[in-house]
Amino acid sequence: MKIAIDGMGGDHAPQAVVEGVVQALKEFDGVEMYITGPENIMAEELKKYDYPKDRVKIIDATEVISTNEHPVMAVRKKKDSSIVKALHLVKEGECDAIISGGSTGAFLAGCTFIIGRIKGVERPALAPIMPGRNGNFMVVDVGANVDCKPQYLAQFAKMGRIYYEAMFDTKNASIGLVNIGAEEEKGNELTKAAYQLLKEEDFNFVGNVEPRDISTGDVNVLVTDGFVGNTVLKMYEGSASTLLKMIKDEIYSAPLIPKLGAALLKPVFKKLMVKFDYKEVGGAPFLGVNNICIKAHGSSDGKAFKNAIRQTILFNERGILDTMKKEFHKEK
Amino acid sequence: MKIAIDGMGGDHAPQAVVEGVVQALKEFDGVEMYITGPENIMAEELKKYDYPKDRVKIIDATEVISTNEHPVMAVRKKKDSSIVKALHLVKEGECDAIISGGSTGAFLAGCTFIIGRIKGVERPALAPIMPGRNGNFMVVDVGANVDCKPQYLAQFAKMGRIYYEAMFDTKNASIGLVNIGAEEEKGNELTKAAYQLLKEEDFNFVGNVEPRDISTGDVNVLVTDGFVGNTVLKMYEGSASTLLKMIKDEIYSAPLIPKLGAALLKPVFKKLMVKFDYKEVGGAPFLGVNNICIKAHGSSDGKAFKNAIRQTILFNERGILDTMKKEFHKEK
Repeated sequence: MKIAIDGMGGDHAPQAVVEGVVQALKEFDGVEMYITGPENIMAEELKKYDYPKDRVKIIDATEVISTNEHPVMAVRKKKDSSIVKALHLVKEGECDAIISGGSTGAFLAGCTFIIGRIKGVERPALAPIMPGRNGNFMVVDVGANVDCKPQYLAQFAKMGRIYYEAMFDTKNASIGLVNIGAEEEKGNELTKAAYQLLKEEDFNFVGNVEPRDISTGDVNVLVTDGFVGNTVLKMYEGSASTLLKMIKDEIYSAPLIPKLGAALLKPVFKKLMVKFDYKEVGGAPFLGVNNICIKAHGSSDGKAFKNAIRQTILFNERGILDTMKKEFHKEK
Repeated sequence: MKIAIDGMGGDHAPQAVVEGVVQALKEFDGVEMYITGPENIMAEELKKYDYPKDRVKIIDATEVISTNEHPVMAVRKKKDSSIVKALHLVKEGECDAIISGGSTGAFLAGCTFIIGRIKGVERPALAPIMPGRNGNFMVVDVGANVDCKPQYLAQFAKMGRIYYEAMFDTKNASIGLVNIGAEEEKGNELTKAAYQLLKEEDFNFVGNVEPRDISTGDVNVLVTDGFVGNTVLKMYEGSASTLLKMIKDEIYSAPLIPKLGAALLKPVFKKLMVKFDYKEVGGAPFLGVNNICIKAHGSSDGKAFKNAIRQTILFNERGILDTMKKEFHKEK
């Protein structure tokens, strides 16, 4: 399998990207990596490592798209950027997949315009996996589509289900609709209409899931519009971070004995942090486009990029794209 | 001041309501309480306490509206319910305010239809105060208006600001728009349009606030549509609860030393729990209606009801209703 990776995408690029690539080459046989970015910088970075040179190619790209730029404009104008070059490698069939830790907006726009949608899919959706108390769960969409029609949500459910069942090697994944009430008639215009579409489908639709219950992880795939999905994602990250900081604040101002307690508890917190660590999970798949497109977290380190590569390989091996194409061609 | 309280509203009613009323009568001079509910049950409950009998009246109400009922239908049909009776006490001028821990839907519908809106207010909004790391913050709206127009959000900002500044005795409260990006042009159709309205106002509008940053408490008043606001509220509660349970899970399965650490840390967690305790905060004001309407948490205990009564007294003393009426009459 050949994977294009945006060498300049992410807060810690290019170092973290190259580190992740080298780790992946050692761990996963049969994968070839195409790194896009300024040739001299990439070569310099790779030099630090010992790695199988026949399985890495540097594709020169002189420009970089920053997260502050207007995504659509940047993708159109910066044809020599690391992200656009990587997208073209996929578009022209040289690579089978793309990974980027760069501007989410540019990535989504680029995947949609350059790679294109699967026939029958109205709106591709970004669908990260998140850690819950009783298991991982997936939210579709978390920001690619901020204004949605009910039928988009029905498609998000189909795509999310295919991905979740294949990646976690399970059947009959439970699908829930994010809503601010449990009963069928609750919610806004969008969720009320989406509920009616979802209950007609022949998958395991469990009904509305209230935001309070999302983080239990009891429901596998949660569908929602991109605005609410992004709010769910960011509130989860933000609340966890705030709570831990508040615990630290309290410990800091506490007397000696609780401080000692905190020291003894360290291994517990460490274990918990691993559970919450996005680096373990890989990236978020952009579902509904014609190729495998993985958005890595902006703050990814080497390990996170390596795991995104592992996820990409699995995405390919499990034939998710073909299943999705069949599902949606059928629909048309 | 005369306050009507729904004697049958809440998971622990009538016991918790009566307990809160009795505590409030002892703590706050000059307040008179009108409790609605089945006369015999209320009298039986009050008998348990020693209290100033001249400051409590039982208003017989034979029906109860449950949280499973259709709110609008229930308010229309159950004219002898504890909540509708309490609303009429306010409507007819016998009482100055209403508190209920019952069905949120019925409370909001009842306040809107029976008590009515302030002239000039398009949509009243439910606006709880929440604990952040660096201070309390307020979210307007958290569920009264699931489908919003931009101008509603501009009004939420005005109402929230008046309430926040009066209750926390501060000036120049910061107002933020909940949005999934920091830049002006980010968001969905609603937030983009609302941003333009908010920046024209002569209050301290600080721009978009991403969900990740809400729980810091750095921005005082956050405006959003009721669907997203409810998601924010419930994700915050749910994430905090999940994280604490995950900490407990880990401690439970940990060896002796971390377990000992957890025991030593108990006072720290206790202090933190007080910060997160809705019982300390009181209830959520329903802003934009013609009287003081406070929605207490469904799981309120006696202390929570007492604090909701304290909040109601403060709401009255600070002249919030008059300020709001002036603000919106001016607008018309």
